[in-house]
Amino acid sequence: MKRALTGIKPTGNVHVGNWLGMIDPALALADEYEAFYFIADYHAMTTVRDPAKLRKFTLETTATWLALGLNTDRAALFRQSDVPEVCELAWILSCQIPTGVLERGHAVKSAKDGGLDVNVGTWYYPVLMSADILLYDSDIVPVGRDQKQHVEVARDLAVKMNHHFGEGTLAVPTVSIKDSVATIPGLDGKKMSKSYGNEIPLWLPPKKLRKLLMKIVTDSTPVEEPKNPDGDTVFELYKLLASAEDTAALRGRYLSGGFGHGHFKQDLFEALDALLAGPREEYQRWVDEPDSVKQVLQRGSERAREVAAATVDRVRSRTGLT
Amino acid sequence: MKRALTGIKPTGNVHVGNWLGMIDPALALADEYEAFYFIADYHAMTTVRDPAKLRKFTLETTATWLALGLNTDRAALFRQSDVPEVCELAWILSCQIPTGVLERGHAVKSAKDGGLDVNVGTWYYPVLMSADILLYDSDIVPVGRDQKQHVEVARDLAVKMNHHFGEGTLAVPTVSIKDSVATIPGLDGKKMSKSYGNEIPLWLPPKKLRKLLMKIVTDSTPVEEPKNPDGDTVFELYKLLASAEDTAALRGRYLSGGFGHGHFKQDLFEALDALLAGPREEYQRWVDEPDSVKQVLQRGSERAREVAAATVDRVRSRTGLT
Repeated sequence: MKRALTGIKPTGNVHVGNWLGMIDPALALADEYEAFYFIADYHAMTTVRDPAKLRKFTLETTATWLALGLNTDRAALFRQSDVPEVCELAWILSCQIPTGVLERGHAVKSAKDGGLDVNVGTWYYPVLMSADILLYDSDIVPVGRDQKQHVEVARDLAVKMNHHFGEGTLAVPTVSIKDSVATIPGLDGKKMSKSYGNEIPLWLPPKKLRKLLMKIVTDSTPVEEPKNPDGDTVFELYKLLASAEDTAALRGRYLSGGFGHGHFKQDLFEALDALLAGPREEYQRWVDEPDSVKQVLQRGSERAREVAAATVDRVRSRTGLT
Repeated sequence: MKRALTGIKPTGNVHVGNWLGMIDPALALADEYEAFYFIADYHAMTTVRDPAKLRKFTLETTATWLALGLNTDRAALFRQSDVPEVCELAWILSCQIPTGVLERGHAVKSAKDGGLDVNVGTWYYPVLMSADILLYDSDIVPVGRDQKQHVEVARDLAVKMNHHFGEGTLAVPTVSIKDSVATIPGLDGKKMSKSYGNEIPLWLPPKKLRKLLMKIVTDSTPVEEPKNPDGDTVFELYKLLASAEDTAALRGRYLSGGFGHGHFKQDLFEALDALLAGPREEYQRWVDEPDSVKQVLQRGSERAREVAAATVDRVRSRTGLT
């Protein structure tokens, strides 16, 4: 069975856009592949400098994925820093790659264009990401278009290492571009994103969730008139959550007139809440039991370490370290 | 007792200049400090890509230091890559340092000035060197003037980490500049260096050593005439090896006339050979028993790992990784 690898940056406040656009498709990988998911806490260090936050984000992010259906019986879920061998492999890879490749990296370019002081970690991170991919002999790395460049660095490094230290030193991964099925609209209709401040947090209590959904920007067609569902944020979100049948029914109510946007928002709330009620409880259960989360990660890291140890042993002996 | 750290790059063919200028003073540290010596095989990877060479250099370099008197009962001698935690600490440090600091690094600058393609490892190496220093809670880092800049990076990083994650996160090392007592002249009188091709390899068999010393460039003063010892390569080398008494005696023979340069070279050979005969045998014994060398390194790495584990635990918990 081929192995697919997904890195998860631990960040606060996961929103509906993350869930539908990224988490859900990533969880579906486990149907087809041996899925490895890791909480990328080393990567988070390039921006998160508050230890309490890093711990909190790691806990909450892990709890989120577990609550949304990550099945640890078939997939491995672990914390990146539980397998520090990744840093060693990164160093070895770094000796094989000219600096120019990193200068052209997205993160570095956009930071520099923004006049920001890039830290070495940000600059070096495509090397660490390559090590993530190559350490676990990943066959498939499904990423968004913006990450394609980085997976290609990993590919090139694997090819280079194999050329230099013998075939089979590292598995050459396949980049699999995941274009989001749909752009998930936020409260104002623009792409849902924390940077736009238009996000719908995933774990709001029902009352707050309802209140927030009521703020979705709509046009001002009077209640009695027919409304156009297409392009309407409430409808677009509903479509992503509801069955084809329910979606068709809602479309009917849009077109028939006699229903206000408040009604549709209530429908959206009910659909979303029905889907999230179970996971929300699950999430809270995990967050309240950090030790159980640690145990899950511990178990995942044992599986990850097995693969990592074999890779590192191979690389160390082929490069002459042992 | 304060701890002093010395990194040793594994390279082929150690010469008399390395011995007198670097190895001997570094070995003397063990009189005053708890001395940690490591064979910097990770660092070597930025230039050595042949695994057989890396193994050979590691073996020979370790054998050289052991043969020249490194006492593993009081000092720790270990291989850098036996403590891979150093790569993890390097990553953590890399998130605390702006790229500009590395752009100004010697190695990067000189490579770029030479129009060379700098690899990421070369660029990143001051970070790895900082991790070497900080991982072992080094109090004193004796380096040549050319390495001062890098130890200062380590100091700055320790100060920054302590400021950010609490005092005592990392020990702040003291840079101790070791200006070579003397420049060791090579066969042509210029500073002995492999890049000038004027070196006297340390482990030549006596016959070859004698033959090589006979090639030292001298002036052409006839045998019977007095000769000026000062600035004469043979005399300068002899002075570094022999007792004050023997040196005075040789000075006398230079000044009295009646002795040719061949005589003085023979004196130099005898002095050098007397000092190296024992170590040469020792060296050969170690090289012929790679397993014993491995055991020595193994023992050293256990000691090093103890210190490293404590540092890494501290850093991981203070930064929020654990």
